[in-house]
Amino acid sequence: MKKEKISNAVIRRLPRYYRHLDDLCSHGEVRISSNTLAKSMGLTASQIRQDLSCFGEFGQQGYGYDVKTLRAALAEILGLNHTYRAVIIGAGNLGRALIKNFYFSLNGFMLVAAFDVNESLVGSEIAGVPVYHTDRLEEELAIIKPFVGILTTPRSCASDVANRLVAMGVPGLWNFTNIELKLKNPEKAVVENVHFADSLLALSFMLNHGSKDEV
Amino acid sequence: MKKEKISNAVIRRLPRYYRHLDDLCSHGEVRISSNTLAKSMGLTASQIRQDLSCFGEFGQQGYGYDVKTLRAALAEILGLNHTYRAVIIGAGNLGRALIKNFYFSLNGFMLVAAFDVNESLVGSEIAGVPVYHTDRLEEELAIIKPFVGILTTPRSCASDVANRLVAMGVPGLWNFTNIELKLKNPEKAVVENVHFADSLLALSFMLNHGSKDEV
Repeated sequence: MKKEKISNAVIRRLPRYYRHLDDLCSHGEVRISSNTLAKSMGLTASQIRQDLSCFGEFGQQGYGYDVKTLRAALAEILGLNHTYRAVIIGAGNLGRALIKNFYFSLNGFMLVAAFDVNESLVGSEIAGVPVYHTDRLEEELAIIKPFVGILTTPRSCASDVANRLVAMGVPGLWNFTNIELKLKNPEKAVVENVHFADSLLALSFMLNHGSKDEV
Repeated sequence: MKKEKISNAVIRRLPRYYRHLDDLCSHGEVRISSNTLAKSMGLTASQIRQDLSCFGEFGQQGYGYDVKTLRAALAEILGLNHTYRAVIIGAGNLGRALIKNFYFSLNGFMLVAAFDVNESLVGSEIAGVPVYHTDRLEEELAIIKPFVGILTTPRSCASDVANRLVAMGVPGLWNFTNIELKLKNPEKAVVENVHFADSLLALSFMLNHGSKDEV
Protein backbone atom coordinates (compact mmCIF):
# COMPACT_ATOMS: atom_id res chain seq x y z
CA MET A 1 0.00 0.00 0.00
CA LYS A 2 1.54 3.30 -1.06
CA LYS A 3 -0.69 5.79 0.70
CA GLU A 4 -1.72 5.51 4.30
CA LYS A 5 -5.09 7.18 4.07
CA ILE A 6 -7.49 5.96 1.44
CA SER A 7 -10.58 8.13 1.05
CA ASN A 8 -14.00 6.69 1.62
CA ALA A 9 -14.91 7.47 -2.00
CA VAL A 10 -12.06 5.26 -3.22
CA ILE A 11 -12.97 2.51 -0.75
CA ARG A 12 -16.53 2.54 -2.14
CA ARG A 13 -15.25 2.15 -5.69
CA LEU A 14 -12.88 -0.75 -4.96
CA PRO A 15 -15.61 -3.43 -4.73
CA ARG A 16 -17.11 -2.08 -7.95
CA TYR A 17 -13.72 -2.36 -9.70
CA TYR A 18 -13.42 -5.89 -8.42
CA ARG A 19 -16.91 -6.83 -9.63
CA HIS A 20 -16.20 -5.43 -13.09
CA LEU A 21 -12.84 -7.15 -13.37
CA ASP A 22 -14.32 -10.41 -12.12
CA ASP A 23 -17.05 -10.13 -14.74
CA LEU A 24 -14.48 -9.42 -17.49
CA CYS A 25 -12.44 -12.42 -16.31
CA SER A 26 -15.41 -14.75 -16.44
CA HIS A 27 -16.07 -13.53 -20.01
CA GLY A 28 -12.52 -14.44 -20.97
CA GLU A 29 -11.27 -10.88 -21.43
CA VAL A 30 -7.49 -10.65 -21.18
CA ARG A 31 -6.89 -6.92 -21.08
CA ILE A 32 -8.83 -3.70 -20.87
CA SER A 33 -7.93 -0.07 -21.41
CA SER A 34 -8.67 2.39 -18.65
CA ASN A 35 -10.95 4.21 -21.12
CA THR A 36 -13.08 1.14 -21.76
CA LEU A 37 -13.21 0.25 -18.08
CA ALA A 38 -14.10 3.85 -17.26
CA LYS A 39 -16.90 3.93 -19.79
CA SER A 40 -18.48 0.71 -18.55
CA MET A 41 -18.34 1.96 -14.97
CA GLY A 42 -19.49 5.53 -15.57
CA LEU A 43 -16.16 6.93 -14.38
CA THR A 44 -13.30 8.75 -16.09
CA ALA A 45 -10.08 7.02 -17.10
CA SER A 46 -8.03 9.47 -15.03
CA GLN A 47 -10.20 8.73 -11.99
CA ILE A 48 -9.52 5.02 -12.35
CA ARG A 49 -5.78 5.55 -12.82
CA GLN A 50 -5.72 7.82 -9.77
CA ASP A 51 -7.71 5.37 -7.62
CA LEU A 52 -5.54 2.39 -8.51
CA SER A 53 -2.33 4.37 -8.06
CA CYS A 54 -3.12 4.36 -4.32
CA PHE A 55 -2.23 0.68 -4.32
CA GLY A 56 0.65 0.33 -6.76
CA GLU A 57 1.46 0.34 -10.47
CA PHE A 58 -1.04 -1.62 -12.52
CA GLY A 59 -1.71 -0.37 -16.04
CA GLN A 60 0.83 -0.08 -18.81
CA GLN A 61 0.88 2.85 -21.24
CA GLY A 62 -0.61 1.70 -24.55
CA TYR A 63 -1.60 -1.72 -23.22
CA GLY A 64 -4.10 -1.00 -20.48
CA TYR A 65 -4.71 -3.39 -17.61
CA ASP A 66 -4.12 -7.10 -17.55
CA VAL A 67 -7.53 -8.29 -16.37
CA LYS A 68 -6.37 -11.29 -14.34
CA THR A 69 -3.53 -9.43 -12.65
CA LEU A 70 -5.68 -6.48 -11.69
CA ARG A 71 -8.48 -8.75 -10.51
CA ALA A 72 -6.03 -10.69 -8.32
CA ALA A 73 -4.56 -7.47 -6.92
CA LEU A 74 -8.01 -6.14 -6.06
CA ALA A 75 -8.93 -9.46 -4.44
CA GLU A 76 -5.84 -9.17 -2.27
CA ILE A 77 -6.55 -5.52 -1.41
CA LEU A 78 -10.14 -6.36 -0.45
CA GLY A 79 -9.13 -9.31 1.70
CA LEU A 80 -10.85 -11.87 -0.54
CA ASN A 81 -8.02 -14.32 -0.15
CA HIS A 82 -8.81 -14.72 3.53
CA THR A 83 -11.67 -16.51 5.24
CA TYR A 84 -12.89 -14.23 7.96
CA ARG A 85 -15.38 -15.53 10.49
CA ALA A 86 -18.69 -13.73 10.85
CA VAL A 87 -21.70 -14.14 13.11
CA ILE A 88 -25.18 -12.79 12.61
CA ILE A 89 -27.47 -11.55 15.36
CA GLY A 90 -31.13 -11.69 14.42
CA ALA A 91 -32.52 -14.60 12.42
CA GLY A 92 -35.74 -12.91 11.33
CA ASN A 93 -36.62 -12.40 7.69
CA LEU A 94 -33.65 -10.22 6.86
CA GLY A 95 -31.24 -12.39 8.83
CA ARG A 96 -32.51 -15.52 7.10
CA ALA A 97 -32.29 -13.83 3.70
CA LEU A 98 -28.60 -13.16 4.31
CA ILE A 99 -27.91 -16.58 5.84
CA LYS A 100 -29.57 -18.40 2.96
CA ASN A 101 -28.74 -16.25 -0.05
CA PHE A 102 -25.68 -14.13 0.52
CA TYR A 103 -22.47 -15.55 -0.93
CA PHE A 104 -20.27 -15.11 2.14
CA SER A 105 -17.52 -17.34 0.80
CA LEU A 106 -17.22 -15.35 -2.43
CA ASN A 107 -16.58 -12.29 -0.30
CA GLY A 108 -13.89 -13.71 1.94
CA PHE A 109 -16.17 -14.66 4.82
CA MET A 110 -17.57 -17.71 6.52
CA LEU A 111 -20.77 -17.33 8.49
CA VAL A 112 -20.30 -19.58 11.51
CA ALA A 113 -23.18 -18.81 13.86
CA ALA A 114 -26.51 -17.07 14.17
CA PHE A 115 -28.11 -15.74 17.36
CA ASP A 116 -31.75 -15.12 18.10
CA VAL A 117 -34.07 -14.86 21.10
CA ASN A 118 -36.79 -16.90 19.36
CA GLU A 119 -36.84 -20.22 21.22
CA SER A 120 -38.33 -22.01 18.23
CA LEU A 121 -35.19 -21.21 16.22
CA VAL A 122 -32.60 -21.84 18.93
CA GLY A 123 -30.91 -25.20 18.44
CA SER A 124 -31.86 -25.39 14.77
CA GLU A 125 -29.70 -24.80 11.71
CA ILE A 126 -30.44 -22.39 8.88
CA ALA A 127 -28.62 -23.33 5.69
CA GLY A 128 -26.11 -25.19 7.84
CA VAL A 129 -25.55 -22.31 10.26
CA PRO A 130 -26.35 -23.14 13.91
CA VAL A 131 -28.70 -20.81 15.77
CA TYR A 132 -27.83 -20.03 19.40
CA HIS A 133 -29.82 -18.09 21.97
CA THR A 134 -28.66 -14.47 22.20
CA ASP A 135 -28.15 -15.07 25.94
CA ARG A 136 -25.16 -17.19 24.93
CA LEU A 137 -23.58 -14.46 22.78
CA GLU A 138 -20.54 -13.77 24.98
CA GLU A 139 -19.86 -17.45 25.55
CA GLU A 140 -19.85 -18.28 21.84
CA LEU A 141 -18.02 -15.11 20.77
CA ALA A 142 -15.17 -16.00 23.11
CA ILE A 143 -14.72 -19.22 21.12
CA ILE A 144 -15.54 -17.99 17.62
CA LYS A 145 -13.67 -14.65 17.81
CA PRO A 146 -15.42 -13.29 14.70
CA PHE A 147 -14.00 -10.52 12.53
CA VAL A 148 -17.45 -9.17 11.78
CA GLY A 149 -20.80 -9.18 13.58
CA ILE A 150 -23.84 -8.74 11.37
CA LEU A 151 -26.74 -6.89 12.97
CA THR A 152 -30.19 -7.85 11.75
CA THR A 153 -31.99 -7.44 15.06
CA PRO A 154 -35.02 -5.24 15.67
CA ARG A 155 -34.09 -1.56 15.98
CA SER A 156 -34.90 -1.52 19.69
CA CYS A 157 -32.04 -3.80 20.73
CA ALA A 158 -29.52 -2.98 17.99
CA SER A 159 -27.26 -0.71 20.04
CA ASP A 160 -27.32 -3.06 23.04
CA VAL A 161 -26.26 -6.00 20.93
CA ALA A 162 -23.65 -3.88 19.14
CA ASN A 163 -22.10 -2.86 22.46
CA ARG A 164 -21.97 -6.50 23.57
CA LEU A 165 -20.14 -7.42 20.35
CA VAL A 166 -17.67 -4.56 20.75
CA ALA A 167 -17.10 -5.44 24.41
CA MET A 168 -16.19 -8.95 23.27
CA GLY A 169 -13.61 -7.53 20.88
CA VAL A 170 -15.46 -7.90 17.57
CA PRO A 171 -13.74 -5.27 15.40
CA GLY A 172 -16.31 -4.93 12.61
CA LEU A 173 -20.07 -4.37 12.67
CA TRP A 174 -22.19 -4.74 9.54
CA ASN A 175 -25.35 -2.91 10.50
CA PHE A 176 -28.65 -3.61 8.73
CA THR A 177 -30.90 -2.23 11.46
CA ASN A 178 -31.43 1.14 9.79
CA ILE A 179 -30.48 3.02 12.92
CA GLU A 180 -27.28 4.80 13.89
CA LEU A 181 -25.72 2.59 16.55
CA LYS A 182 -24.94 4.26 19.86
CA LEU A 183 -21.60 2.75 20.81
CA LYS A 184 -20.01 3.22 24.20
CA ASN A 185 -16.56 2.73 22.67
CA PRO A 186 -16.87 3.81 19.03
CA GLU A 187 -13.08 3.83 18.63
CA LYS A 188 -13.01 0.07 19.14
CA ALA A 189 -15.03 -0.94 16.09
CA VAL A 190 -15.61 -0.07 12.47
CA VAL A 191 -19.30 0.19 11.60
CA GLU A 192 -20.56 -0.28 8.07
CA ASN A 193 -24.21 0.71 7.75
CA VAL A 194 -26.51 -0.60 5.07
CA HIS A 195 -29.06 2.19 5.20
CA PHE A 196 -31.91 1.07 2.96
CA ALA A 197 -33.64 4.44 3.42
CA ASP A 198 -30.64 6.38 2.14
CA SER A 199 -30.61 4.23 -0.96
CA LEU A 200 -34.33 4.68 -1.63
CA LEU A 201 -34.12 8.44 -1.05
CA ALA A 202 -31.19 8.67 -3.47
CA LEU A 203 -33.28 6.80 -6.06
CA SER A 204 -36.20 9.09 -5.41
CA PHE A 205 -33.97 12.12 -5.87
CA MET A 206 -32.53 10.79 -9.13
CA LEU A 207 -36.01 10.08 -10.45
CA ASN A 208 -37.15 13.59 -9.61
CA HIS A 209 -34.09 15.47 -10.68
CA GLY A 210 -32.88 13.37 -13.55
CA SER A 211 -29.32 12.81 -12.40
CA LYS A 212 -27.96 9.43 -13.39
CA ASP A 213 -24.19 9.88 -13.44
CA GLU A 214 -22.23 7.54 -11.25
CA VAL A 215 -19.13 8.59 -9.37
CA MET B 1 -32.67 23.95 -7.87
CA LYS B 2 -29.71 26.10 -8.81
CA LYS B 3 -27.47 23.65 -10.59
CA GLU B 4 -28.68 21.19 -13.17
CA LYS B 5 -26.22 18.42 -12.54
CA ILE B 6 -25.84 17.18 -9.00
CA SER B 7 -22.97 14.75 -8.53
CA ASN B 8 -23.60 11.28 -7.25
CA ALA B 9 -21.44 12.02 -4.21
CA VAL B 10 -23.75 14.89 -3.23
CA ILE B 11 -26.85 12.77 -3.89
CA ARG B 12 -25.45 10.13 -1.52
CA ARG B 13 -24.93 12.71 1.22
CA LEU B 14 -28.41 14.26 0.99
CA PRO B 15 -30.21 11.42 2.81
CA ARG B 16 -27.54 11.53 5.51
CA TYR B 17 -28.05 15.29 5.95
CA TYR B 18 -31.75 14.66 6.21
CA ARG B 19 -31.31 11.92 8.80
CA HIS B 20 -29.05 14.11 10.91
CA LEU B 21 -31.39 17.11 10.72
CA ASP B 22 -34.36 14.91 11.51
CA ASP B 23 -32.52 13.55 14.52
CA LEU B 24 -31.64 17.08 15.69
CA CYS B 25 -35.26 18.14 15.22
CA SER B 26 -36.55 15.26 17.31
CA HIS B 27 -34.10 16.25 20.05
CA GLY B 28 -35.51 19.77 20.03
CA GLU B 29 -32.46 21.45 18.53
CA VAL B 30 -33.30 24.81 16.96
CA ARG B 31 -30.11 25.70 15.14
CA ILE B 32 -26.76 24.18 14.31
CA SER B 33 -23.51 25.57 12.96
CA SER B 34 -22.02 24.03 9.86
CA ASN B 35 -18.97 23.17 11.99
CA THR B 36 -21.00 21.19 14.52
CA LEU B 37 -23.00 19.46 11.80
CA ALA B 38 -19.78 18.68 9.93
CA LYS B 39 -18.15 17.20 13.03
CA SER B 40 -21.06 14.92 13.81
CA MET B 41 -21.17 13.70 10.21
CA GLY B 42 -17.45 13.27 9.64
CA LEU B 43 -17.43 15.94 6.93
CA THR B 44 -15.93 19.41 6.68
CA ALA B 45 -17.98 22.57 7.13
CA SER B 46 -16.99 23.82 3.70
CA GLN B 47 -18.12 20.54 2.15
CA ILE B 48 -21.54 20.92 3.75
CA ARG B 49 -21.86 24.56 2.66
CA GLN B 50 -20.83 23.59 -0.87
CA ASP B 51 -23.27 20.65 -1.02
CA LEU B 52 -26.23 22.67 0.22
CA SER B 53 -25.40 25.61 -2.07
CA CYS B 54 -26.46 23.35 -4.96
CA PHE B 55 -30.03 23.79 -3.76
CA GLY B 56 -30.25 27.36 -2.51
CA GLU B 57 -29.20 29.63 0.34
CA PHE B 58 -29.67 27.99 3.71
CA GLY B 59 -27.19 28.96 6.43
CA GLN B 60 -26.63 32.45 7.79
CA GLN B 61 -23.17 33.78 8.63
CA GLY B 62 -22.73 33.67 12.41
CA TYR B 63 -26.03 31.90 13.02
CA GLY B 64 -25.67 28.57 11.26
CA TYR B 65 -28.62 26.60 10.02
CA ASP B 66 -32.16 26.72 11.29
CA VAL B 67 -32.76 23.02 11.93
CA LYS B 68 -36.46 22.93 11.05
CA THR B 69 -36.06 25.01 7.89
CA LEU B 70 -33.16 22.96 6.60
CA ARG B 71 -34.91 19.70 7.47
CA ALA B 72 -38.02 20.82 5.59
CA ALA B 73 -35.95 21.92 2.59
CA LEU B 74 -34.16 18.56 2.48
CA ALA B 75 -37.47 16.73 2.79
CA GLU B 76 -38.75 18.67 -0.22
CA ILE B 77 -35.54 18.05 -2.20
CA LEU B 78 -35.71 14.31 -1.45
CA GLY B 79 -39.39 14.05 -2.40
CA LEU B 80 -40.49 13.15 1.12
CA ASN B 81 -43.58 15.31 0.84
CA HIS B 82 -44.95 13.03 -1.85
CA THR B 83 -46.44 9.57 -1.56
CA TYR B 84 -44.99 7.56 -4.41
CA ARG B 85 -46.39 4.14 -5.15
CA ALA B 86 -44.04 1.19 -5.08
CA VAL B 87 -44.41 -2.52 -5.81
CA ILE B 88 -42.13 -5.34 -4.76
CA ILE B 89 -41.35 -8.41 -6.81
CA GLY B 90 -40.22 -11.35 -4.73
CA ALA B 91 -41.83 -12.09 -1.35
CA GLY B 92 -39.11 -14.40 -0.05
CA ASN B 93 -37.19 -13.64 3.13
CA LEU B 94 -35.69 -10.37 1.91
CA GLY B 95 -38.94 -9.23 0.33
CA ARG B 96 -40.85 -10.00 3.51
CA ALA B 97 -38.23 -8.22 5.62
CA LEU B 98 -38.79 -5.06 3.57
CA ILE B 99 -42.57 -5.40 3.46
CA LYS B 100 -42.81 -5.90 7.21
CA ASN B 101 -40.07 -3.71 8.58
CA PHE B 102 -39.10 -0.95 6.18
CA TYR B 103 -40.73 2.41 6.91
CA PHE B 104 -41.93 3.19 3.39
CA SER B 105 -44.21 6.00 4.49
CA LEU B 106 -41.38 7.80 6.31
CA ASN B 107 -39.50 7.82 3.03
CA GLY B 108 -42.23 9.20 0.82
CA PHE B 109 -43.47 5.84 -0.46
CA MET B 110 -46.46 3.56 -0.15
CA LEU B 111 -45.97 -0.12 -0.90
CA VAL B 112 -49.15 -1.14 -2.69
CA ALA B 113 -48.51 -4.64 -4.03
CA ALA B 114 -46.19 -7.62 -3.86
CA PHE B 115 -45.66 -10.23 -6.57
CA ASP B 116 -44.42 -13.77 -6.22
CA VAL B 117 -44.62 -17.07 -8.08
CA ASN B 118 -45.19 -19.03 -4.86
CA GLU B 119 -48.82 -20.19 -5.06
CA SER B 120 -49.04 -20.49 -1.27
CA LEU B 121 -48.43 -16.74 -0.95
CA VAL B 122 -50.58 -15.57 -3.87
CA GLY B 123 -53.88 -14.17 -2.65
CA SER B 124 -52.58 -13.54 0.86
CA GLU B 125 -51.54 -10.26 2.47
CA ILE B 126 -48.22 -9.54 4.13
CA ALA B 127 -48.47 -6.66 6.60
CA GLY B 128 -51.52 -5.46 4.70
CA VAL B 129 -49.84 -5.66 1.28
CA PRO B 130 -51.64 -7.96 -1.19
CA VAL B 131 -49.56 -10.63 -2.93
CA TYR B 132 -50.32 -11.26 -6.63
CA HIS B 133 -48.91 -13.91 -8.93
CA THR B 134 -46.02 -12.58 -11.00
CA ASP B 135 -47.95 -13.71 -14.10
CA ARG B 136 -50.30 -10.81 -13.39
CA LEU B 137 -47.50 -8.23 -13.22
CA GLU B 138 -48.38 -6.30 -16.39
CA GLU B 139 -52.08 -6.30 -15.60
CA GLU B 140 -51.57 -4.84 -12.12
CA LEU B 141 -48.80 -2.43 -13.14
CA ALA B 142 -51.13 -0.90 -15.73
CA ILE B 143 -53.48 0.00 -12.89
CA ILE B 144 -50.97 0.82 -10.15
CA LYS B 145 -48.49 2.77 -12.30
CA PRO B 146 -45.78 2.60 -9.64
CA PHE B 147 -42.90 5.05 -9.42
CA VAL B 148 -40.53 2.36 -8.16
CA GLY B 149 -40.30 -1.40 -8.55
CA ILE B 150 -38.37 -3.20 -5.83
CA LEU B 151 -36.50 -6.30 -6.96
CA THR B 152 -36.08 -9.04 -4.35
CA THR B 153 -36.38 -12.00 -6.72
CA PRO B 154 -33.84 -14.77 -7.12
CA ARG B 155 -30.86 -13.69 -9.22
CA SER B 156 -31.86 -15.95 -12.09
CA CYS B 157 -35.00 -14.02 -13.01
CA ALA B 158 -33.96 -10.51 -11.87
CA SER B 159 -33.18 -9.09 -15.31
CA ASP B 160 -36.31 -10.60 -16.86
CA VAL B 161 -38.53 -9.07 -14.22
CA ALA B 162 -36.65 -5.75 -14.46
CA ASN B 163 -37.25 -5.62 -18.21
CA ARG B 164 -40.95 -6.32 -17.70
CA LEU B 165 -41.16 -3.43 -15.23
CA VAL B 166 -39.34 -1.06 -17.57
CA ALA B 167 -41.51 -2.14 -20.51
CA MET B 168 -44.54 -1.20 -18.42
CA GLY B 169 -43.11 2.27 -17.85
CA VAL B 170 -41.85 1.91 -14.27
CA PRO B 171 -39.17 4.63 -14.10
CA GLY B 172 -37.26 3.47 -11.00
CA LEU B 173 -35.82 0.10 -10.00
CA TRP B 174 -34.55 -0.56 -6.49
CA ASN B 175 -32.41 -3.63 -6.98
CA PHE B 176 -31.61 -5.97 -4.08
CA THR B 177 -30.72 -9.00 -6.19
CA ASN B 178 -26.96 -8.46 -5.97
CA ILE B 179 -26.57 -8.71 -9.73
CA GLU B 180 -26.10 -6.03 -12.36
CA LEU B 181 -29.40 -5.92 -14.24
CA LYS B 182 -29.19 -6.41 -17.99
CA LEU B 183 -31.74 -3.93 -19.30
CA LYS B 184 -32.87 -3.83 -22.92
CA ASN B 185 -33.64 -0.12 -22.59
CA PRO B 186 -31.37 1.20 -19.85
CA GLU B 187 -32.19 4.79 -20.80
CA LYS B 188 -35.77 4.28 -19.71
CA ALA B 189 -35.15 3.60 -16.02
CA VAL B 190 -32.99 4.65 -13.11
CA VAL B 191 -31.52 1.70 -11.24
CA GLU B 192 -30.42 1.96 -7.63
CA ASN B 193 -28.49 -1.10 -6.53
CA VAL B 194 -28.18 -2.23 -2.95
CA HIS B 195 -25.05 -4.30 -3.34
CA PHE B 196 -24.58 -6.08 -0.02
CA ALA B 197 -21.26 -7.49 -1.20
CA ASP B 198 -19.82 -4.04 -1.93
CA SER B 199 -20.72 -2.97 1.56
CA LEU B 200 -19.15 -6.02 3.21
CA LEU B 201 -16.00 -5.67 1.10
CA ALA B 202 -15.71 -2.01 2.06
CA LEU B 203 -15.99 -3.01 5.72
CA SER B 204 -13.40 -5.70 5.22
CA PHE B 205 -11.07 -3.17 3.60
CA MET B 206 -11.53 -0.67 6.41
CA LEU B 207 -10.83 -3.35 9.01
CA ASN B 208 -7.66 -4.38 7.22
CA HIS B 209 -6.39 -0.97 6.30
CA GLY B 210 -7.60 1.12 9.19
CA SER B 211 -9.44 3.82 7.26
CA LYS B 212 -12.50 5.09 9.05
CA ASP B 213 -13.07 8.58 7.65
CA GLU B 214 -16.46 9.19 6.14
CA VAL B 215 -16.96 11.29 3.01
